[in-house]
Amino acid sequence: MWKTFTCPGDEGTLETLFALGNGHLGIRGSHSTAGDSELPGTFINGFHEIWDIKHAENAYGFARTGQRIVYVPDANNFTVSIDGEALSLAESTVLDYHRSVDFSTGVYEERIVWSCRSGATVTTVERRAVGFDSRGCLGLELSLSADRDVSADITSGVVNRQDQPVEDHSVHDPRRSGRHAGRVLLPLHLQGADGSLRLAWETSESRQRVAMAVDHWISAEGQPFETLVAEDESSVRYVLAIHDGDTFRLEKTVSYVVAGSAGDAEDRGESLAAEAEANLVSFADILAQSKAHYDEYWTTADVSIGGQAEMQQAVRWGLFQLAQATARAGVAGIPAKGVSGSGYEGHYFWDQEIYLLPYLTYTNPAGARKVLESRHAMLPDARVRAKELSVDGALFPWRTINGLEASAYYAAGTAQFHIAAAIAFAANRYQWASGDDTFSAELGADLLIETARMWASLGFFGKDGMFHIHGVTGPDEYTAVVNDNLYTNVMARFNLRAAAALEHEGIAETERMVWRQAAERMSLPYDPHLQVFSQDNDFMTLEPWDWNTPKSKYPLLLNFHPLVIYRHQVLKQADTVLAMFLQWQDFTAEEKQRAFDFYDPITTGDSTLSACVQGIMAAEVGYGDVALQHFTEALFIDLDNSHGNTIDGVHIASTGGIWSSLVCGFAGMRDQGDVLRFDPRLPVEWEGLSFRLKVQGRLLAVELEQGSIALTLVSGPGYSAEPLQVKVRDYDVTVGADTVTVPLDTVPVPPPSIFPSVFPTAGLPIIR
Amino acid sequence: MWKTFTCPGDEGTLETLFALGNGHLGIRGSHSTAGDSELPGTFINGFHEIWDIKHAENAYGFARTGQRIVYVPDANNFTVSIDGEALSLAESTVLDYHRSVDFSTGVYEERIVWSCRSGATVTTVERRAVGFDSRGCLGLELSLSADRDVSADITSGVVNRQDQPVEDHSVHDPRRSGRHAGRVLLPLHLQGADGSLRLAWETSESRQRVAMAVDHWISAEGQPFETLVAEDESSVRYVLAIHDGDTFRLEKTVSYVVAGSAGDAEDRGESLAAEAEANLVSFADILAQSKAHYDEYWTTADVSIGGQAEMQQAVRWGLFQLAQATARAGVAGIPAKGVSGSGYEGHYFWDQEIYLLPYLTYTNPAGARKVLESRHAMLPDARVRAKELSVDGALFPWRTINGLEASAYYAAGTAQFHIAAAIAFAANRYQWASGDDTFSAELGADLLIETARMWASLGFFGKDGMFHIHGVTGPDEYTAVVNDNLYTNVMARFNLRAAAALEHEGIAETERMVWRQAAERMSLPYDPHLQVFSQDNDFMTLEPWDWNTPKSKYPLLLNFHPLVIYRHQVLKQADTVLAMFLQWQDFTAEEKQRAFDFYDPITTGDSTLSACVQGIMAAEVGYGDVALQHFTEALFIDLDNSHGNTIDGVHIASTGGIWSSLVCGFAGMRDQGDVLRFDPRLPVEWEGLSFRLKVQGRLLAVELEQGSIALTLVSGPGYSAEPLQVKVRDYDVTVGADTVTVPLDTVPVPPPSIFPSVFPTAGLPIIR
Repeated sequence: MWKTFTCPGDEGTLETLFALGNGHLGIRGSHSTAGDSELPGTFINGFHEIWDIKHAENAYGFARTGQRIVYVPDANNFTVSIDGEALSLAESTVLDYHRSVDFSTGVYEERIVWSCRSGATVTTVERRAVGFDSRGCLGLELSLSADRDVSADITSGVVNRQDQPVEDHSVHDPRRSGRHAGRVLLPLHLQGADGSLRLAWETSESRQRVAMAVDHWISAEGQPFETLVAEDESSVRYVLAIHDGDTFRLEKTVSYVVAGSAGDAEDRGESLAAEAEANLVSFADILAQSKAHYDEYWTTADVSIGGQAEMQQAVRWGLFQLAQATARAGVAGIPAKGVSGSGYEGHYFWDQEIYLLPYLTYTNPAGARKVLESRHAMLPDARVRAKELSVDGALFPWRTINGLEASAYYAAGTAQFHIAAAIAFAANRYQWASGDDTFSAELGADLLIETARMWASLGFFGKDGMFHIHGVTGPDEYTAVVNDNLYTNVMARFNLRAAAALEHEGIAETERMVWRQAAERMSLPYDPHLQVFSQDNDFMTLEPWDWNTPKSKYPLLLNFHPLVIYRHQVLKQADTVLAMFLQWQDFTAEEKQRAFDFYDPITTGDSTLSACVQGIMAAEVGYGDVALQHFTEALFIDLDNSHGNTIDGVHIASTGGIWSSLVCGFAGMRDQGDVLRFDPRLPVEWEGLSFRLKVQGRLLAVELEQGSIALTLVSGPGYSAEPLQVKVRDYDVTVGADTVTVPLDTVPVPPPSIFPSVFPTAGLPIIR
Repeated sequence: MWKTFTCPGDEGTLETLFALGNGHLGIRGSHSTAGDSELPGTFINGFHEIWDIKHAENAYGFARTGQRIVYVPDANNFTVSIDGEALSLAESTVLDYHRSVDFSTGVYEERIVWSCRSGATVTTVERRAVGFDSRGCLGLELSLSADRDVSADITSGVVNRQDQPVEDHSVHDPRRSGRHAGRVLLPLHLQGADGSLRLAWETSESRQRVAMAVDHWISAEGQPFETLVAEDESSVRYVLAIHDGDTFRLEKTVSYVVAGSAGDAEDRGESLAAEAEANLVSFADILAQSKAHYDEYWTTADVSIGGQAEMQQAVRWGLFQLAQATARAGVAGIPAKGVSGSGYEGHYFWDQEIYLLPYLTYTNPAGARKVLESRHAMLPDARVRAKELSVDGALFPWRTINGLEASAYYAAGTAQFHIAAAIAFAANRYQWASGDDTFSAELGADLLIETARMWASLGFFGKDGMFHIHGVTGPDEYTAVVNDNLYTNVMARFNLRAAAALEHEGIAETERMVWRQAAERMSLPYDPHLQVFSQDNDFMTLEPWDWNTPKSKYPLLLNFHPLVIYRHQVLKQADTVLAMFLQWQDFTAEEKQRAFDFYDPITTGDSTLSACVQGIMAAEVGYGDVALQHFTEALFIDLDNSHGNTIDGVHIASTGGIWSSLVCGFAGMRDQGDVLRFDPRLPVEWEGLSFRLKVQGRLLAVELEQGSIALTLVSGPGYSAEPLQVKVRDYDVTVGADTVTVPLDTVPVPPPSIFPSVFPTAGLPIIR
């Protein structure tokens, strides 16, 4: 049903689309033959190099430690030579070519039929999969058959590419920042014999270690022709005859282990290589682990759309990517590209809390908890950073791997204090949705309290008696360092309220009172003339953007100086609209509609985080067509490479946003209130929409059709059968093992708000 | 009378205080003996190296070309060895030591009496001066005498120090930004024989050339013992006997010539060295040029204060520095440190227009014109830069040597658009004060029109019908990228008005109308409750600064993250108050007083540009004691090294501000209206204040005493005798060759405005 998938595009984009991963280990979907790949790479979540950031003009408190995920030595290298002719997609006579990733098993398969100059027709099949229980393991299989006897010369390599410079695509793109010169991975231990490689390296600055054990098995008699070991390229070579009708198979099993700088310095390479060896599992076992994982995964995490085959396929691609980015991440953040590429340098941002954790909380709550544990582990560094920035509590870094701030441009980095509320919000959602009764005491309270302390000291009670938070950047990075960003204030209010509601002996009563009053008196900028909430105190006074700007000038951040962008009324991504989605209970339907009507037309969507949120709020407002349009845009961001940078990896936050679009947008799910709510907006073009949610110990099946929603508690091991109270629009519904179906009226499309039209030109007024 | 000057302090500070210069060539006041200097150096205004700025996170339009004034090879090196013992201030037995700079002649003199281990008592005198007509020339003289026959071994060196790393004093100090590695000056031509050196180098990136010719003359018989030439150190050595009672003199005459990269590539070192040789003049001629310059200078530029000997001396030191920074600069900017050090990398800022050109316009109008010519020469680059920043007209760089933006931190760099108005203002003042009737057509109109075009496109007419300028940083860098900075808007209004008033065929009538309306409807932020003009649209809503911050945490920019500073109500330097000084006619006395009362207490004075302006406005408001306090602070910034960085060079803008404090503060001079005005505020402690102004072709002598002001037109060659209309307070006065004395009533001290007191703590309110 969802078995094969092909997509046109350039090679680097396809390498991302065909990547495999398990949240810990990732391998790009590159061709294994040298010269046929554009940006091959293997990544281990969190395995990174560091460097001292050199600021062209430094100032107190600027980020000091650059961090970047490292391209670990890559096992995906085969040279296949038949009768003396090397297989090359670019240069061989290829008769048939096909590749696929099977979402139901997690197996990548590539099949090439080619005609040798010797006259033989050769079929080459490569399969790959990553382990799940064995999360450091990767299996590759090469099969060869020919229509006559041939001689084959096959080399299987491990290549240390010393950190490929993906950041060089555009030196003007701030999304790819920082460089460090010289060699990244220094060898600790290099050993190999008889088709087995035992290798270990250490990063030169961060002193992290990675070891690999690589074993080979062949279906034919005989031994490797040679086993070579070297610092940047090791290999095992087979020279043999393949007879007509036989299929030669080479299995290459790989095990990666990473470790920090601690441990036995004498033996820090060899012992880690031995650990990698101990973890090795067979190719068959890797296939089995992958299959088992996806069997379970699709049972609970699938989302099906009735009557929309193309969208369905795209949605499943997205759900597959989400699993690949998160399944076995362990206690770690989820990089902005998962483990599918080195884009955004493998950093963890607020996206993981706002865009990814909704999906993870409701499909894999244990995984969600581990992400929050990784944030909790950053608290000591965040407390130090808070002091540097003259605030109390904890200040989380805007972008980081190791817990230290890595954003070298504070206006779109450290100034995004709202990441604190994102973490508090995700913690609160996990607490609300999981029923995990140890979470608050072990992690959740700390996260809520330390962030609330940060807000209380960052903001202040102004002369008007209201609580203000000044000098911050909201999610929309097309204005920066503004006063009273609505999103920030709304989310900080949530954060303060949630912390104030905790019963915790660490909270002083005066402190609790301040949090409550700050929340109560939080200043939310509002334009009384337009009757629209303002993105910040000044946003409504800004000059309109020139909407005649040619398309080639987008994204604006690559074509205009920040000062030009910041002084105009133009959005990179949803900001006020996002606040109204996340803190839905704080705004009326009319407020939401007027905000959507005002901001949607001036939002460029230059950020991939925007379309999904705009779609969700369009759905809530009642604009079904706009909702579907934004959803479709979000759905195909990577599949269509519409932002032109899919080569750097899957936009995993936007992909999480697709899940939210389906569940919160079209099914209208809202949480963290008294009960789970649904206020569905099924697109008229769709026959249905169904998915399952792990909520408060239950597995809730949701099945939407035109005119009704059906809710059922799925029974099964580990799921509570206790009936669940939910709300469908205004109706209270008790859901148990028997399906409850609630009829739904069509939501009317409201008349859109009419605002003064924006000026047709920027700068000078028209002179008549 | 003002002959000698000594001052305690560390060596590097004294090297600045004793520096010599003529605006083109500068030499620090270092001891010539190796090991006795801290930061020796010779500079040529505008001779600089460039490099590509590496931004840790780059974005469109960020500054690309770093620029830094180069330490040119330094002639101030002597090794004096008597009876085999080298003179060293640090290690020799020094019996008497004295050094001075004679403000009346421009001669540095240093006298050391020391006791040799051989038993001889030796007197060493070094004198130095720079040429004026021969602006590339420097003369040094070493005299030696002893109380018995001694053997002397003297080496005179030229040292290429390859750009001393003064920027390393504090890596966190953004005032010292940028680094470039490797060698800066590469040799083109190195030749020497018989005591003559002919040397030429080229900068490695900017490809500027510098050549030196160095000749030696000795009072004794004989020839140099040896003449050595090498890339980084060349020298001439004398070995001889000095007899008891004789004085041995060594004269070292030096000529520097610089050239750009154009010209004969084959011969670009030797020909330049030949040019340097042709310019060589004798030591006696250099002394004579210097003396002649200062004879003339003090006749017209002196400012005398009655009954305040210490202040008088300090003022004369300042006036001497102003001459040294500007006298023979030619068509060039005036670096922030003149030619006395490499601080601020030798860049030209807005300070030259706002703080230095008032002095220069009224004492050396030809010099002022040349500075404006250098701005005019930057127009082509400024037009390109305007396009990069999406504005019309010309956008001048915030800091530059070669005309390209060099500020790597746009929030306190490029965002300071107000530099455009500073240039327009200086051009307008020059036009007003000089009576130069070719200026407007040749330079002035271009400067006014291109900057007006920039303002018209940068700002816009908002929904309120007013003209707004958003996303700018005013002079006060403790808020950044704000909307409607009052200073910027007031100065832009001036700029637009001045351009609109031009009769110039290049101005379209619609354009003129837009300029007029933009000026007419310029939005000036005002707090109606406090009845105070607000520094920007949001300033009055900011959180008060915590004034319990310990003194060690100042300057704030070195101890707090910009985000912390920007969100608080705290000023680095006068901003609104400066606007009210420069555009005095636009504000009432009450508005000025309330602004002064509001801003003065929250201004840290972390910038050396602040105290002089605060003093001027304190004087106008009527706060005599506060005026004197601020003036005194400004007067001793370098002499007391009160900002701790005098080692990097004289704060020449602040020194210009001292002149303005005297002339505009205490004598209350205001210009650019119908006539020159005086509204004096002579401090009660002072017996008098007198100075001369070159104004509209006349030389006007101003003599203030308690209770009166006397005005006279001084006759002399080149000065018009045409009576001058001026205003003294409300009286119209016609000044001619006969002194007119106007009696003055004492200005009453107004009762200070009372504002709500600032909160005692930052962040949380006090909980009772």
